[in-house]
Amino acid sequence: MAGRPTFEEVARFHGHVCPGLALGYRMAVAALDALGVERAEDEELVAIVENDACGVDAVQYLAGCTFGKGNLVFRDHGKHVYTLLSRRSGRAVRVVGHLQGAPPELREERAAYIQWILQAPLEALVSLREVQVEHPPLARIRSSAPCARCGERVMETRLRSVNGRLLCIPCAEEEQRAGDVHA
Amino acid sequence: MAGRPTFEEVARFHGHVCPGLALGYRMAVAALDALGVERAEDEELVAIVENDACGVDAVQYLAGCTFGKGNLVFRDHGKHVYTLLSRRSGRAVRVVGHLQGAPPELREERAAYIQWILQAPLEALVSLREVQVEHPPLARIRSSAPCARCGERVMETRLRSVNGRLLCIPCAEEEQRAGDVHA
Repeated sequence: MAGRPTFEEVARFHGHVCPGLALGYRMAVAALDALGVERAEDEELVAIVENDACGVDAVQYLAGCTFGKGNLVFRDHGKHVYTLLSRRSGRAVRVVGHLQGAPPELREERAAYIQWILQAPLEALVSLREVQVEHPPLARIRSSAPCARCGERVMETRLRSVNGRLLCIPCAEEEQRAGDVHA
Repeated sequence: MAGRPTFEEVARFHGHVCPGLALGYRMAVAALDALGVERAEDEELVAIVENDACGVDAVQYLAGCTFGKGNLVFRDHGKHVYTLLSRRSGRAVRVVGHLQGAPPELREERAAYIQWILQAPLEALVSLREVQVEHPPLARIRSSAPCARCGERVMETRLRSVNGRLLCIPCAEEEQRAGDVHA
């Protein structure tokens, strides 16, 4: 992944091409450019995303802020807004995908609309400003212990105490339901 | 992405190599093999993941069940368990990464441990069984409307009514705080 991945590479990761992914691609590139940074190997970048739609896959792929690495923070606001933070510089940019310059007649022509999004001047689709954000805590590795009911291992902070036994959440919920039936 | 991606490709997406990613790689491959399916272009596969640790990036990359596509369901149980569902066949497999066959002395030798995980017989690290699961609803595209305070567009289901105005969640929370101060 030397250099910035193309939209085609991002689309291969996402699985298909769509306007949301194209907008996410432009937003992610804009955020990386504004901070002057490249993809995160570890947690040096953090993305705070305010929706869970297609474009977030571009953020994962381009910025290296992935669900599994703990540097993708989801705030379920239903807004086309990504905030990208560099832990190294402390700088953060907030990118809003507004598509305000999009020709209305294009919105019904999917392929042409995607091409327009990929090539339009940035200010026709995105606004961007520097912001101050709190640094989210780094991901932690926690110890685990077996559930006293199913025996599967569970991260310690997710064990639930039920009638004096430490259970995983699904087992705790099943015992609770069984107790409700017997009560 | 013709053929099954190598561990190196998955590591490039994740950003680095670690035991959790190696285990996730084996678990994801095992699930795809058990169902006899390839990567999801759209939502034909669904992954239900019971943690948000490194290995989930292997699920995203190999199974095409990504955060942005709506076919990655997160249940915050702190367990090394992935369930992969094929909407086409209706079949689902539940994969538990237990690493029970891992030589204890290897766990402190990171590089050798990763190599062991990638090459060990499947039964030394994973158990797998077919299960019945409810099909999660397909992702939906919803209409949006501007927040009456900041003007940014918001998915309709995330608008909050505050003193008769429809606001985005961050604006609603700010108004609430301001009201608390003035009250």
